[in-house]
Amino acid sequence: MSGFRYELIKTDGKARRGRIHTAHGVIDTPVFMPVGTAGTVKAMKPEDVAGLGAQIILGNTYHLYLRPGHKLVEKLGGLHTFMNWPGPILTDSGGYQVFSLAHMRKMSEEGVRFQSHIDGSQHLLTPELSTEIQHSLDATITMAFDECTPYPATEEVARTSMELSMRWAKRSRDAFVRRDGYGQFGIMQGSVYPHLRKESMEKLAALDFEGYAIGGLAVGEPSEVLWEMTDVSAALMPENKPRYLMGVGYPSDLIHAVMSGVDMFDCVLPTRNARKGQVFTSEGVINIGNAIHTESDLPLDPACGCYTCAHYTRGYLRHLFKAGEALHAMLMTEHNLYFYQHVMKTLRDAIEQGNLKEVAEKLLKTVR
Amino acid sequence: MSGFRYELIKTDGKARRGRIHTAHGVIDTPVFMPVGTAGTVKAMKPEDVAGLGAQIILGNTYHLYLRPGHKLVEKLGGLHTFMNWPGPILTDSGGYQVFSLAHMRKMSEEGVRFQSHIDGSQHLLTPELSTEIQHSLDATITMAFDECTPYPATEEVARTSMELSMRWAKRSRDAFVRRDGYGQFGIMQGSVYPHLRKESMEKLAALDFEGYAIGGLAVGEPSEVLWEMTDVSAALMPENKPRYLMGVGYPSDLIHAVMSGVDMFDCVLPTRNARKGQVFTSEGVINIGNAIHTESDLPLDPACGCYTCAHYTRGYLRHLFKAGEALHAMLMTEHNLYFYQHVMKTLRDAIEQGNLKEVAEKLLKTVR
Repeated sequence: MSGFRYELIKTDGKARRGRIHTAHGVIDTPVFMPVGTAGTVKAMKPEDVAGLGAQIILGNTYHLYLRPGHKLVEKLGGLHTFMNWPGPILTDSGGYQVFSLAHMRKMSEEGVRFQSHIDGSQHLLTPELSTEIQHSLDATITMAFDECTPYPATEEVARTSMELSMRWAKRSRDAFVRRDGYGQFGIMQGSVYPHLRKESMEKLAALDFEGYAIGGLAVGEPSEVLWEMTDVSAALMPENKPRYLMGVGYPSDLIHAVMSGVDMFDCVLPTRNARKGQVFTSEGVINIGNAIHTESDLPLDPACGCYTCAHYTRGYLRHLFKAGEALHAMLMTEHNLYFYQHVMKTLRDAIEQGNLKEVAEKLLKTVR
Repeated sequence: MSGFRYELIKTDGKARRGRIHTAHGVIDTPVFMPVGTAGTVKAMKPEDVAGLGAQIILGNTYHLYLRPGHKLVEKLGGLHTFMNWPGPILTDSGGYQVFSLAHMRKMSEEGVRFQSHIDGSQHLLTPELSTEIQHSLDATITMAFDECTPYPATEEVARTSMELSMRWAKRSRDAFVRRDGYGQFGIMQGSVYPHLRKESMEKLAALDFEGYAIGGLAVGEPSEVLWEMTDVSAALMPENKPRYLMGVGYPSDLIHAVMSGVDMFDCVLPTRNARKGQVFTSEGVINIGNAIHTESDLPLDPACGCYTCAHYTRGYLRHLFKAGEALHAMLMTEHNLYFYQHVMKTLRDAIEQGNLKEVAEKLLKTVR
């Protein structure tokens, strides 16, 4: 099997400028993946997501399994065709959502029993089923099924949880149907314990996944712990495979993680916060609902080149927010995703030019 | 004052193919105006509305007066700049919304006292204030302030109401600030009584408005009554000014009214119904929530050339609807507005080619 591979183009310190070659196209890394939970990046047309420079999006196994069902998506041509996104798609394994959204969870060696948050129906999600669902969805990148260890966790709890996830990783790997240009990533656990992270990575490496993810972070720990554990974890990962930090984060988190050698990110922050009226700008965060913006004829970010900033004032966007208009979510999401893509492009360019440290320090002074 | 004028290009029976020349561009008639209630055509970017062929949109005086306030819109450059729609905008007078949305209405010769449906604040809307608000909004076409006579109404009630509206029309006309390329329309009332309609039109004509509207229809009367009263009313209207049937309607209503010589329409049906999962197609109406569409790989309308029909299946759109995704409203609205624009273009072409009767009969067999 070939066609799925990571190409390292240039390094700057630990940071890596690379490309992932897949069945659905090339991904320039470091990359931020917009989240398309239920088969749509909320409030965005897929062409507009691509127009912002996004080369890969994330889909949610838990959500799509429950509604509309992976068999329906498969029948309608797979997730790419279903949602009109021909490019690469990474699907999570559903594990994280089972723990954060579902009711009446009961874990066993076999998997997790739970009740749907939509209709209360009973389900058992296993490594095998999660992998099958992702296959039906036609995910370019399939994630292994794992338990996201809660924070804080004692070393004993972290070890037990990690070891279960590693047994599940083996079962996920066994269930994965290899296809040209498709890949499967294993997920490292181990909470904040470096020796557990190391052990986890060794077990995953033995399964020879096409890429590896850092799981169990961005679950409530302080930023410094996130940054340090990311740095420790990335250093344990092989050089010839993509490295993905799951569920992270603020622009400052992305910058720190890129400097630690991480290649891939996903997070709901730019999309979810946009809908709540919060935007990321080159000068920090703005809450558009604040009265100070009522009569403002400024764009969200005078330094921004996005569609929203080119055509709309804060005063207008605040009006749409207060009136509960769908266009508010559309315009704010477009701005935030553009901002995230712009930060990633800035970092990629800096790695290429060998001045990442300088560029990152400058960015970190102003962005959140 | 000049610059605002109606140009009659061709007739076919009573139907008229024309152009309205305004300060903000030319409008090809017969025309359907998408409704942009609160400074946005709901769930659509303005460029996408224009891309469907819409040359003019409607804004709501009542809504914009209450939120964000006409003085704020004026300060931020007027409604065109505020909402990023450089083309013509017609604003209603607010009268209809005061009667359908506001609380604690009390009418007098002076105007209407009411409580805001948003925050309960007290207001008095008069012909002078309505006209001033529309001026602040920078409306290309300002509507006279009137009372939309309820249906059914006795002849006595209809006469009293119409006569009040005609006094208000005079006050609206006196308050209107003439500007090059801008116009003001008077609104005919008279319920279902032809002699009252005639009297109303004579009073309006004496005020020499730049156009005239048919008010007090589409308020609950049967389709046949709507069509007949439209026909009677249009015949009373001068040939050298645009004729606007307010708040109408289904595609079949538009076809009948065009054949009676009406030039302009607005209605929330294509936008509001889209958000409720109802779409207009060349084969009638579809409710996307119906289970029959669950696994459908058909577009909404196989005969349609819109973006939604080119890229998405009924199965996907039903999924978005069930999941409450914003993209559902976006895609369904785009389809419905395209359909309405397409019907109007078909009618304009038919008038030009002199085969409207044939084209209309064919359309009426399938559309709602």
